[in-house]
Amino acid sequence: MFFHRKELQYHAKPDAPDAVFAKQVQELIGGQFGEMTVALQYLFQSWGTRGNDKYRDLLMDTGTQELGHIEMLATMVARLLEGAPVYEQEKAAKDPVVGAIMGGMNPQHAIVHGLGASPKDSNGVPWNSGYIIASGNLLADFRANVNAESQGRLQVARLYSMTDDRGVKDLLSFLIARDTMHQNQWLAAIKEMEAKEGVIVPSTVPPEWEATEFSHTLYTNADSTASQLDFLKQPAPDGAAFKEEESKAFGGVPELKPAPPQAHDTLPGEND
Amino acid sequence: MFFHRKELQYHAKPDAPDAVFAKQVQELIGGQFGEMTVALQYLFQSWGTRGNDKYRDLLMDTGTQELGHIEMLATMVARLLEGAPVYEQEKAAKDPVVGAIMGGMNPQHAIVHGLGASPKDSNGVPWNSGYIIASGNLLADFRANVNAESQGRLQVARLYSMTDDRGVKDLLSFLIARDTMHQNQWLAAIKEMEAKEGVIVPSTVPPEWEATEFSHTLYTNADSTASQLDFLKQPAPDGAAFKEEESKAFGGVPELKPAPPQAHDTLPGEND
Amino acid sequence: MFFHRKELQYHAKPDAPDAVFAKQVQELIGGQFGEMTVALQYLFQSWGTRGNDKYRDLLMDTGTQELGHIEMLATMVARLLEGAPVYEQEKAAKDPVVGAIMGGMNPQHAIVHGLGASPKDSNGVPWNSGYIIASGNLLADFRANVNAESQGRLQVARLYSMTDDRGVKDLLSFLIARDTMHQNQWLAAIKEMEAKEGVIVPSTVPPEWEATEFSHTLYTNADSTASQLDFLKQPAPDGAAFKEEESKAFGGVPELKPAPPQAHDTLPGEND
Amino acid sequence: MFFHRKELQYHAKPDAPDAVFAKQVQELIGGQFGEMTVALQYLFQSWGTRGNDKYRDLLMDTGTQELGHIEMLATMVARLLEGAPVYEQEKAAKDPVVGAIMGGMNPQHAIVHGLGASPKDSNGVPWNSGYIIASGNLLADFRANVNAESQGRLQVARLYSMTDDRGVKDLLSFLIARDTMHQNQWLAAIKEMEAKEGVIVPSTVPPEWEATEFSHTLYTNADSTASQLDFLKQPAPDGAAFKEEESKAFGGVPELKPAPPQAHDTLPGEND
Amino acid sequence: MFFHRKELQYHAKPDAPDAVFAKQVQELIGGQFGEMTVALQYLFQSWGTRGNDKYRDLLMDTGTQELGHIEMLATMVARLLEGAPVYEQEKAAKDPVVGAIMGGMNPQHAIVHGLGASPKDSNGVPWNSGYIIASGNLLADFRANVNAESQGRLQVARLYSMTDDRGVKDLLSFLIARDTMHQNQWLAAIKEMEAKEGVIVPSTVPPEWEATEFSHTLYTNADSTASQLDFLKQPAPDGAAFKEEESKAFGGVPELKPAPPQAHDTLPGEND
Amino acid sequence: MFFHRKELQYHAKPDAPDAVFAKQVQELIGGQFGEMTVALQYLFQSWGTRGNDKYRDLLMDTGTQELGHIEMLATMVARLLEGAPVYEQEKAAKDPVVGAIMGGMNPQHAIVHGLGASPKDSNGVPWNSGYIIASGNLLADFRANVNAESQGRLQVARLYSMTDDRGVKDLLSFLIARDTMHQNQWLAAIKEMEAKEGVIVPSTVPPEWEATEFSHTLYTNADSTASQLDFLKQPAPDGAAFKEEESKAFGGVPELKPAPPQAHDTLPGEND
Ligand SMILES: [Ca+2]
Ligand SMILES: [Ca+2]
Ligand SMILES: [Ca+2]
Ligand SMILES: [Ca+2]
Ligand SMILES: [Ca+2]
Ligand SMILES: [Ca+2]
Repeated sequence: MFFHRKELQYHAKPDAPDAVFAKQVQELIGGQFGEMTVALQYLFQSWGTRGNDKYRDLLMDTGTQELGHIEMLATMVARLLEGAPVYEQEKAAKDPVVGAIMGGMNPQHAIVHGLGASPKDSNGVPWNSGYIIASGNLLADFRANVNAESQGRLQVARLYSMTDDRGVKDLLSFLIARDTMHQNQWLAAIKEMEAKEGVIVPSTVPPEWEATEFSHTLYTNADSTASQLDFLKQPAPDGAAFKEEESKAFGGVPELKPAPPQAHDTLPGEND
Repeated sequence: MFFHRKELQYHAKPDAPDAVFAKQVQELIGGQFGEMTVALQYLFQSWGTRGNDKYRDLLMDTGTQELGHIEMLATMVARLLEGAPVYEQEKAAKDPVVGAIMGGMNPQHAIVHGLGASPKDSNGVPWNSGYIIASGNLLADFRANVNAESQGRLQVARLYSMTDDRGVKDLLSFLIARDTMHQNQWLAAIKEMEAKEGVIVPSTVPPEWEATEFSHTLYTNADSTASQLDFLKQPAPDGAAFKEEESKAFGGVPELKPAPPQAHDTLPGEND
Repeated sequence: MFFHRKELQYHAKPDAPDAVFAKQVQELIGGQFGEMTVALQYLFQSWGTRGNDKYRDLLMDTGTQELGHIEMLATMVARLLEGAPVYEQEKAAKDPVVGAIMGGMNPQHAIVHGLGASPKDSNGVPWNSGYIIASGNLLADFRANVNAESQGRLQVARLYSMTDDRGVKDLLSFLIARDTMHQNQWLAAIKEMEAKEGVIVPSTVPPEWEATEFSHTLYTNADSTASQLDFLKQPAPDGAAFKEEESKAFGGVPELKPAPPQAHDTLPGEND
Repeated sequence: MFFHRKELQYHAKPDAPDAVFAKQVQELIGGQFGEMTVALQYLFQSWGTRGNDKYRDLLMDTGTQELGHIEMLATMVARLLEGAPVYEQEKAAKDPVVGAIMGGMNPQHAIVHGLGASPKDSNGVPWNSGYIIASGNLLADFRANVNAESQGRLQVARLYSMTDDRGVKDLLSFLIARDTMHQNQWLAAIKEMEAKEGVIVPSTVPPEWEATEFSHTLYTNADSTASQLDFLKQPAPDGAAFKEEESKAFGGVPELKPAPPQAHDTLPGEND
Repeated sequence: MFFHRKELQYHAKPDAPDAVFAKQVQELIGGQFGEMTVALQYLFQSWGTRGNDKYRDLLMDTGTQELGHIEMLATMVARLLEGAPVYEQEKAAKDPVVGAIMGGMNPQHAIVHGLGASPKDSNGVPWNSGYIIASGNLLADFRANVNAESQGRLQVARLYSMTDDRGVKDLLSFLIARDTMHQNQWLAAIKEMEAKEGVIVPSTVPPEWEATEFSHTLYTNADSTASQLDFLKQPAPDGAAFKEEESKAFGGVPELKPAPPQAHDTLPGEND
Repeated sequence: MFFHRKELQYHAKPDAPDAVFAKQVQELIGGQFGEMTVALQYLFQSWGTRGNDKYRDLLMDTGTQELGHIEMLATMVARLLEGAPVYEQEKAAKDPVVGAIMGGMNPQHAIVHGLGASPKDSNGVPWNSGYIIASGNLLADFRANVNAESQGRLQVARLYSMTDDRGVKDLLSFLIARDTMHQNQWLAAIKEMEAKEGVIVPSTVPPEWEATEFSHTLYTNADSTASQLDFLKQPAPDGAAFKEEESKAFGGVPELKPAPPQAHDTLPGEND
């Protein structure tokens, strides 16, 4: 179960209001790789881990903290909206800067949330759990996690260039650092697991389930230069040799049978 | 631009109808890691690649083929529905096996699609482009891709156990093989890129943007065993040393200022 | 503004409970072409019609009635759930027929709605206004409408085969008839408009906005038989002649410029 | 910030596997009023509270615990799936009970999550943050909260009848009790606030913003019996007297002007 | 069934065009608490009411009128877009005010709807029926309704400050008044029902289904001030006494069993 | 299966950067009638066609090319973002034109996609497959297709007025032309099919399934002028005569039975 303490994990105080940047920061809260995603992804992965207690705990430790990251960013958004001229229509009509703010901000910050953060992305699209990955296979999921931390750190780095506010940059520098750690930890765990299981997920597929003649061939379009990639000359990560071939068909031309009358599909013979 | 040839990339012919399995196969078409996701993800990544032509072509080569994978699976679903007793209500009332089929199938296969495949997942939830990852940073995106191929191969392997149909298993064995190749190729490309750029994405963040004192510490809950993980005793993937500490707060308790009257928020003093 | 009268537009009384069919009927309420779509589509089209009062009224007349169709179907679903054994777990464990009902029904009918209809489709996916079409161009929108009534009547016809209940079939026979009328009225209105405006929407595009050398050519894949279609030998509906050619490219190979450093995209030269 | 302890807030151990019930329990995790909603709703409300610290803390205390409720239910789902015959296709073909399980379960439990819980509802629809309410006005939001706890307790009560498993019922009895408390606390807080602010939200609207002649009239359809409701004879909750009138229009018939040519809307005169 | 009359329920005529405000008004049409939600929510609740005819009629009376509220707002949006410079790119390049309008408006008003209203919220996110609440338990649903009218009136009040247009304000003053009435009526109906049924929903849960030792305790975080709330010293709304305790665990540490091999989950022993 | 060639089907090169227009062009990629919709709609229709090979090929030919249209538009968006001042916050603070760009652009172009196109619409809402229509009945689906091409051409025409960039207009002129062709081809195919099948979809419904007394009557509201429409004086498209009548009810007032106790619905007698 969970407990809360009122201190933030790190400072979240902008130097000045900025309603347009408040909209942009929402990407880090409720975007595909916002903190809602990583927090809930790690928690669901942890809750579904069967055995492997240390990994289960690692997921819980990290997920618990990401909950606190939503908190810091929600606080930052609420403060970026403090004192911003979001309801001042009269000023807006006269002052193009105020007008630009009221046009460029997220209207729901003013209308729906009363200057609080929204659980949505930078375009106001609701977060949804279709972003979450939790498969029960930890090697697969740690790969999802290292991707999430890579995308996340990339987005924070981009936002870093989109503001001059030192208070905002201070919080972003903390998030950049934590995503460095999280990339490191998932990469290290992956390396550990790959050393035991091999690199192809899931490692438990019997060879007779696989049409292995297709397991190492790169199929290319006629004008592609991909076959010149250096890595193709090395052994594949699973140890076999890469092959390369122009794309071709191994199956026949499919013909579907007519549907039964109750389907009311177009009857055969309309245009065969 | 794209061209099409009528042969399937591989065989897609079940031995017998199975409307319930047709519903389950939909996960591979329109699920989070179905072929719609990987096809469109690779295409959008390719279209956004700036320079790095061989990688751009690799993405296009792979995406083009995944389009053909949607085709094979759509054909398989259409054939699993051929001859299945999906409109035979009178039989269903008497025959529990037919009843179970009509209750366990996706009703939209009968009502909406007239025995064709649906662009949705195994629960009938529409595919949406929120699943797609295309960031412009190829190392980040190749990590997304190796995850997608890992989750995809895992799901195919699970479906392999959920049917006895040899025709279905034949197609699944091809998909298992292709996802082996795709894991291999993205892993190899990642290794190549990490060797040049380093392992932390994005590699272009200047050190002064990062609160580096937080870049290598695992923060744990009090009862966590994660600190016993072996990998913590090794250097982190980026070369520095991991540290470990019990979770704690570095920021203060946040207090938000009252909202302006136009927000009609609860006034301060209600319950302070 | 709107008014309501308590009589249903038509009877909506099943002969017997059927919780599984109640789930399937939901497609006609909250599916892509359920009554929620047509009702709200016609209302939004009407509210956006600028001049053209008789068409505006036609849209309102039809939309108003479709609201009553949601009502009839919601009543039907509520009655199909009356007396169905949806909470009788003990029976279910012993009686496979009851078990099949509890497994094949929409669980939200029991858990969320307390035996009332749901504003969702036959898989329990919420209706959303992304289904609605309202463009301000009536010829375009009447084409959307004739499609909606075609898809709708098709779905009702399929459901007609999926039940033996005479009460249900009675309501479906009314819906089939109304969708006949609605196809007729939109087709007639389209014919009327096409006679005045021409067949290509929008009719108001000046010729110099169009690369007319591409306005009548069918581009085909190499193995396509589409060029044998009879209609290609007739004048096109807008009066010009169809042409046919194998698919080819008219543009060059695109090269994108590198992104600025603040994007933290992969740098050029990684793999060119 | 947040902390976690490995003990569950309450027991979550079923007596026996039940894959179909595992699907139904998902409503309490990822449905509109599942624990994901209340947990995140209370957290976002707390993070947006400006002053009113005790209410802010109450929201945080309750939200923190609801996170632990997701955990208990995710554990319950994972255990309901332990030992359930979800991959045993051969048995299913012969044994109608196994067949009914494989048809009635959520296929993603087997294919996507490897027998773990899903962050989705009982139909497999992803949870989304459009369910969350956080307005900055606490009286409005506490009303949202008492509704959420009412809907939640109602759903748990329904599920209670849909299983015979004593372990499941034990957990449900805890959730029923907690939702009693949560209804009590929000009702009490509402009463406290209404006594200070008055009952109409927001209390801060100046009277001149309101067309008060419409503030207390019930408009009814011609055949409605609503005007016989007893409460209409009492003073309204805000102290004024209710009035009752048959529904009528106070505005004129709207006529929209033609759109500019660039809109390519239907031209006026098509059918006026 | 439904009938329509062409007069609007109230005036909906702005003094001047304002494309940016047209975008913001969309929140009242297709937002979580826009008129689409309340209209359809009341209709679905009415259609699902079993007995209790006067309440059923009250729901229908109110829902019918809310349909007319969508109509007024759709008309208002269409008129706010009349004469707004939304297609005048050449002016926009030279005139920063025109540029701000084209950047701050909803592009779909111009591109998709041809200057008509959209069935979406102020960020262009489609309305979906996941917003609707219709449980079959009227006390629960009336609580949902009073919340909806509270959130709705709050949003209208905020928009009132965001415009100077007297015509817009006139319509908003009518909506403010109607939401006063609707709060009054649901509050009065709730009071009436609570007097008969008691305050805890559902009132029909037998005491032996509830772990009553947890029904009145507030569990708090260590640094919370919530236990100082005045209402805790009063009897709880259901008559019992509130208790207060620091948050603690009543369940054990959960351990999940390994998954069967067909799940291809991580095997136990990877890192225990 | 599919093949790709690197040349674009047509030129896609703007004269100058324009980040706000890049946002607007997204409607043509990931909007309801963007190229993702038509491409995937035609492919799914083709894959579900049973017999009728020439139509099947026509669908595939057209769908294959629409894939290339996504490619052209994604390239256009990427180039419109090249050199646009999207990360230049310092300039933005001083220069209102730069400020307007950063407020009016899609923030995800900068934060999420690193200056690449997004698979979403002009408001940043993800594309979803709920837009796709594929019914197995080709006459119904060709009507969907002619609507899609009408809406698509309309949107392109509107965008044509919203830019002065000659490179953009060049691409739009190609899209306008192709949508002319596609309207022509679907209209011609529809005419061909209607001549064989008749105009009412599906043509295979037996007359005894239809309550034919309701198949040709226009029901109108009391103040509607729709009955004056000229087309009502002509025979209906299916050959019968139109009738006209004021809207009325043919069914009785529905009464629902009380729910069973396990539903915990409001009991009958609360307010009858
Ligand atoms: Ca992180
Ligand atoms: Ca693949
Ligand atoms: Ca209709
Ligand atoms: Ca609760
Ligand atoms: Ca209202
Ligand atoms: Ca087209």
